[in-house]
Amino acid sequence: MTAPLKSIDGTGDISVLMAGIGREARAAARVLALTPAEQKDRALTAMAAAVRARKAAILAANAEDIAEAKAGGAAKAYLDRLALNEARVEGVAAGIEVVAALKDPVGQVTEAWTRPNGMRVERVRVPLGVIGIIYESRPNVTADAGVLCLKAGNAAILRGGSDSARSSRAIHAALEEGLRAAGLPEAAISLVPTRDRAAVGEMLAGLDGNIDVIVPRGGKGLVARVQAEARVPVFAHLDGNVHVYIDKAASLDMAKTIVLNAKMRRTGVCGAAETLLVDRACAATHLKPLIEMLLDAGCEIRGDKAVQAVDNRVKPASEEDWSTEYLDAIIAAKVVDGIDDAIAHIERYGSHHTDAIITDDQAAADKFLAQVDSAIVLHNASTQFADGGEFGFGAEIGIATGRLHARGPVGAEQLTTFKYRIRGTGQIRP
Amino acid sequence: MTAPLKSIDGTGDISVLMAGIGREARAAARVLALTPAEQKDRALTAMAAAVRARKAAILAANAEDIAEAKAGGAAKAYLDRLALNEARVEGVAAGIEVVAALKDPVGQVTEAWTRPNGMRVERVRVPLGVIGIIYESRPNVTADAGVLCLKAGNAAILRGGSDSARSSRAIHAALEEGLRAAGLPEAAISLVPTRDRAAVGEMLAGLDGNIDVIVPRGGKGLVARVQAEARVPVFAHLDGNVHVYIDKAASLDMAKTIVLNAKMRRTGVCGAAETLLVDRACAATHLKPLIEMLLDAGCEIRGDKAVQAVDNRVKPASEEDWSTEYLDAIIAAKVVDGIDDAIAHIERYGSHHTDAIITDDQAAADKFLAQVDSAIVLHNASTQFADGGEFGFGAEIGIATGRLHARGPVGAEQLTTFKYRIRGTGQIRP
Repeated sequence: MTAPLKSIDGTGDISVLMAGIGREARAAARVLALTPAEQKDRALTAMAAAVRARKAAILAANAEDIAEAKAGGAAKAYLDRLALNEARVEGVAAGIEVVAALKDPVGQVTEAWTRPNGMRVERVRVPLGVIGIIYESRPNVTADAGVLCLKAGNAAILRGGSDSARSSRAIHAALEEGLRAAGLPEAAISLVPTRDRAAVGEMLAGLDGNIDVIVPRGGKGLVARVQAEARVPVFAHLDGNVHVYIDKAASLDMAKTIVLNAKMRRTGVCGAAETLLVDRACAATHLKPLIEMLLDAGCEIRGDKAVQAVDNRVKPASEEDWSTEYLDAIIAAKVVDGIDDAIAHIERYGSHHTDAIITDDQAAADKFLAQVDSAIVLHNASTQFADGGEFGFGAEIGIATGRLHARGPVGAEQLTTFKYRIRGTGQIRP
Repeated sequence: MTAPLKSIDGTGDISVLMAGIGREARAAARVLALTPAEQKDRALTAMAAAVRARKAAILAANAEDIAEAKAGGAAKAYLDRLALNEARVEGVAAGIEVVAALKDPVGQVTEAWTRPNGMRVERVRVPLGVIGIIYESRPNVTADAGVLCLKAGNAAILRGGSDSARSSRAIHAALEEGLRAAGLPEAAISLVPTRDRAAVGEMLAGLDGNIDVIVPRGGKGLVARVQAEARVPVFAHLDGNVHVYIDKAASLDMAKTIVLNAKMRRTGVCGAAETLLVDRACAATHLKPLIEMLLDAGCEIRGDKAVQAVDNRVKPASEEDWSTEYLDAIIAAKVVDGIDDAIAHIERYGSHHTDAIITDDQAAADKFLAQVDSAIVLHNASTQFADGGEFGFGAEIGIATGRLHARGPVGAEQLTTFKYRIRGTGQIRP
C-alpha cells in the first residue's frame, strides 16, 4: 500500500515550500557538480534495482491513480498514458541503466589551446545547475528526466501531473533510495509534493534564481504556458510542423519509402511528417503514386488544387492546414514551384523543428540543408529520426527548437554548460 | 556637417517604428545567414575604409555631441568616454579590420559522426539571428558590436546612448556604406533613430520575436535594468567581483607579481581583482609583503582584523566590502583558513566571473579550478586576462556570467548557434 497524499494541497504556503525546494536543489547541485562519474553511476544502478524491488508498490500506487482518474471520467488514451504494468516498470528500470551506461559529459575538455605567452586555456564541460521539469501525467517521466539530469551533474526539480501523483511518488521513492545508496543528497532529484498548480507558477518564476532552465514535457497547452510565463530559459518545442520536400531529382522509390515512414510509422511523434511538398517538375510522375500510397495506407490527405486533381479522396486544404501539426494519420500536401518555393513555404509555415529533402541532386540537397533554418535538416532520410536515441545520444529529455544553448534533441551533453580553465606559470597581462 | 537629428523623438509611434526595425532586421538576418565569408569580409573592409574616409564628418558629429553634453554639465570622465579624436577614429577602423581577418565561425562542423545505419550526422554552426545591443554613450561600440555580429552572420539592432547619438549616426553611416558596397542589406546593422527611451523597452520585450538575444554594454545600472526587464536571453555580467587566493604553497614572488597586475594594471576593467584572500598557513610570510606592496602602489586596502594587524594604513573591511566591485584602486583583503574556506568565501560573495589561485601545489590548483563555479578560473596567472582578445578570440562583445549558451568572453563563435545536418541514402526508422 502507498501512503496517502500529504495533504498540504491548498493549505500550506506554496511560496515558502517551493523556495525551500529551490534552495535544497541548489545545494545538491553544488555537490553533484563535483561528484565523480562512478558515484553518479552507482546511484543510477541502485535506482534501477530499487525500481525493480519496488515494482509491487509502484503498481499499487498506479492502480490508485488510475482508479481516481477513471472515476473522474478520463478518456481511454489518457488512461493508457497514465497506466503502468510490469513491462512498463521494467522499461523504467532498463531506461535508468541505459543512462548509467552513457559517457559522463562533465569534465570533458571540448577545446584547448596555448596562448603565445604559454598560458594553457581549456574549455571544460560543467553541469548547468538546477533543472526544473514540468510534465503531464506520465509517471515514467519522473525517472527518465530525473536520471538524465543527474547523469549530467544537475539537480532536478520534478513537477508531474496531478493524476499521476501517487505513481510518480512511488517511482521517486526508488530514485531517492538510489541516491542514498550512493551517498548523494536526496535533493538531487526532488519531486514537488503538492498538486497545487501554484507550484508551477513558482517554478516558472525561477525559485529566486534557483532554477537555471525549465523543460516542459507534455502537450501544446503545457508547453505554450511554460514558454509564455517562464522567467528562466526553456528547452522545448511547441510544434513539430515537419515537412518532406520531394525534389524533381528524387527517386520515386526512395520518396515513397521515406514519405510512408515519415508520416505513418508513428503519427503521434514530433518528427512525424505533417506536410508533403512536391516539386511541380516531377509532379507528373511522382505526385499520384505518393498520394495513392498514403491514401491506401489510411492517411487522410488535405491538398491544394493540383493534389486534389490526382485522386478524388483528397480533401481540400485550408490555409490553416499548412501550419497544423496533426499528430495523426493526416497530411497536408502541396505542389510547389521548385526548391526555392519549397524553402519559402517551410520558412513561412514551419516550426524550425525537422525538415527533409528527397533528391538525387547533391547541389539541391546542399541548398536545402543550408537554407532551411530548422534544428534538424535531413537529406534522403526519414524525419522520424528526429530523436535523441536515433542520434546516438542514448537518452533525451526532449527536442528544443529555440536557438540558444540547446537545439534539436536534448541529451546529457546539452544539459551541461562550460567554463574556461586557465593554467599559467606566473603570466601577467602587459 | 552632420544632418540634424531626425526629430521623431517623443512624437512618432515608437512601437510601430521598432516593430518595423525588428522585421527588417529579421529579413536581413535571413540573407546574412547565407552570405559567404568573403562577402561579409568585403563589407567589413569597405566599412573600415568608409570610417577613414568619413573621419572629418565623424569628428564634426562628435564635436556637436560633446558640446551638447558639456552644456548639460557632463563630468570629465564621461566626456572622455564620449570623445573621439583622430587616433580613436583610426582605432575604430583598425578594429573593423581585425574582425574582417577573423575566421568565419558560420558553417564550421563542430562534431560529425556516422550512425550504424549509415546516416551521417553533422553539427554545424549557424548564426544566432538578430542581436540587440543596448549601450551607453561610447560611440566606438556602434562599430565594435555591429561588425562582430555581422562577422557571425547576425543582424544587429544598435541602441546607443543619447549623448552620442550624432557620433553613432556618423559611424553607422560608414557601416551602411560598407554594407551597400558588398551588396548586403542596410538592415544588417540598424541604428535605432530615436533618443526616446521607450525604444529600449520595446527591444527588451523582443520586438515580436525579432530579437534573439540582447547584449547590454555599459555600467551596472544599464545591465541591471536589462537583466531585470528583458523577455529575451541576455549575454552580460552585472558584477566582476574577482578574487585572487594566495594558497599556502604559493611562491611569494609570483604572488606579488600577479596580485599587483591583477589589481593595479587597470583598475576599471571587469577582470581587475577586487578581493585578496590569503591562506592563514602562509600569512606569516606572505601577508605583510603583499599588503605593503599594494599600499605602496597606491592601493587602498580594506582588511579583516588579521590584515589590519600588518600595517596601520589598512582600513577595516565591512561586510559589504566582500561583495563590492570597486573598479578602483581599492581591494578587500582577508585571511582564510585554507583552500576550502577560500572557495566557500568565493561561492558566498563572488559573481561567477573570474577567480584565480596562486600556488605551487598542483592538487590545490586542480581543486580550486574544479570547485570554483566561475566562467573563468585561473591558476598562476593574472585575472586581467579575462578578455576575449587575451583568449585569442580577436574581438569580444562582452563577458557573460550567465550559464546558458555563452559564458566568459563572448566572441564571434559565441554569437552562433548550431543545427544538425543529416545525410542519408534512403534510411527509414524501423
